[in-house]
Amino acid sequence: MNTATLGHREPLTRTIDRIARAGFGGIAPWRREVEQADVAALARQIRALDLRVTGYCRSTALPAATRQAFLANVEANRAALHDAAALGARCFVMVAGGIPEGERDLAGARAQFAEGVAALLDTARALNVPLALEPLHPMYAADRAVLNTLAQALQVCETVDPDNGGFLGVAIDAYHCWWDPALEASIDAAGRARRILAYHVCDWLRDTQDLLLDRGMMGDGVIDLPAMRACVEQAGYDGLVEVEIFSARHWWRRDPDDVLACCAARLQTVC
Amino acid sequence: MNTATLGHREPLTRTIDRIARAGFGGIAPWRREVEQADVAALARQIRALDLRVTGYCRSTALPAATRQAFLANVEANRAALHDAAALGARCFVMVAGGIPEGERDLAGARAQFAEGVAALLDTARALNVPLALEPLHPMYAADRAVLNTLAQALQVCETVDPDNGGFLGVAIDAYHCWWDPALEASIDAAGRARRILAYHVCDWLRDTQDLLLDRGMMGDGVIDLPAMRACVEQAGYDGLVEVEIFSARHWWRRDPDDVLACCAARLQTVC
Repeated sequence: MNTATLGHREPLTRTIDRIARAGFGGIAPWRREVEQADVAALARQIRALDLRVTGYCRSTALPAATRQAFLANVEANRAALHDAAALGARCFVMVAGGIPEGERDLAGARAQFAEGVAALLDTARALNVPLALEPLHPMYAADRAVLNTLAQALQVCETVDPDNGGFLGVAIDAYHCWWDPALEASIDAAGRARRILAYHVCDWLRDTQDLLLDRGMMGDGVIDLPAMRACVEQAGYDGLVEVEIFSARHWWRRDPDDVLACCAARLQTVC
Repeated sequence: MNTATLGHREPLTRTIDRIARAGFGGIAPWRREVEQADVAALARQIRALDLRVTGYCRSTALPAATRQAFLANVEANRAALHDAAALGARCFVMVAGGIPEGERDLAGARAQFAEGVAALLDTARALNVPLALEPLHPMYAADRAVLNTLAQALQVCETVDPDNGGFLGVAIDAYHCWWDPALEASIDAAGRARRILAYHVCDWLRDTQDLLLDRGMMGDGVIDLPAMRACVEQAGYDGLVEVEIFSARHWWRRDPDDVLACCAARLQTVC
């Protein structure tokens, strides 16, 4: 369970308890809630409840208008990797960041992202926390993520880490990738390269009303989630399925325990 | 000038006059405004003003939940092709349509689209109106268009019309394609295949607030339009550059002549 699904309405300690009590096997917390708390205490709580940390969300945007700002972004990610290690996270989720404000150099921003990933790889290895590059939907290419397809993410992996040392891969999110005509081929390639580090689900609502905060509960949208999960598992992924729903108009207004119960039911029936 | 840029606020006859008076060399009208008027009279007016019809917008969605509905969609497009011919359109712009309501079969909808295109190709040839397949941004994959990348559109062309008889190609719209990591390669491939039938511009606003009606004026967003135009022209396209801006919050509230003047200026300076 990705904690964003509950809307970050409560302290993380309470969210951790809810998720464990609801029977989930793992949790993916966000930096915004971890960095304002005692990381070691959170890690103890999570371990005591026997929750796996499926991922730590998420990287500081890497592309920047100045060299100095870019290097600062790299260091912010390095610091976050230490917290990911303290939490025992299976991966550190990296979204690229958008095109620097006032610029139009998409290719340059993409190159900066790859450079930043390369600069962080040794730290990831030293801390035993793989970097999971998560392509976001192309509608975020301007302001949030210049990494937009699974094929593109795999290309970054192969360029930065051609021998696959085991600390660089991809996070596949159904919401971001479901539309991709090359999806099956890309998932297959990611599996053959042993690069699939995480699998996230929610649903794409037919009447999506907001670019960021209107994701759907699994089963309420158009994504063929059973087919996508079969594809991901066929490609060798045997980790947990993580639920990540940003839903300001619906799920973030519902009782957290009800949301968790619905997610648990849908994971059994429509994923 | 695509007439949608002016928000369909006036009868088409008046829009045609405005566009010609502003000095544009071409027009792309919409069926919603043509089908309620006298097509032959519109065609005479457009010819008298020496405007080229860069495209006729646009196809009825093809994918449908029943065979009967799919065949009706094909016939609606066939009828529209006759109007396109009457107008002397350089192409009939085809967007795919979304996944049929209540379904999740993206691959099936894509196959239906290709089947519909194949069914219309003879009519296109007979009427001398090429079909221009326009991939729309992936954010429309659910409800508007299951054709989402240029590579995918070219694949449909090659499957349906492997020998390229001259009546099947693509419309490249900067708004829909700018984010694509494979964009340059795909434009190059489209050029080599002699399939580029139209080129549309507007801009992607960094703070896009609506999925459909918040496109930007060229120069106000993040797309590197000079680079994209150079790529399209390098690939052999020598037709007009068509401006198509859906902008409920800004440009559709402005005086039509001011909008046209701004478009004309931006075409000279930032495209």
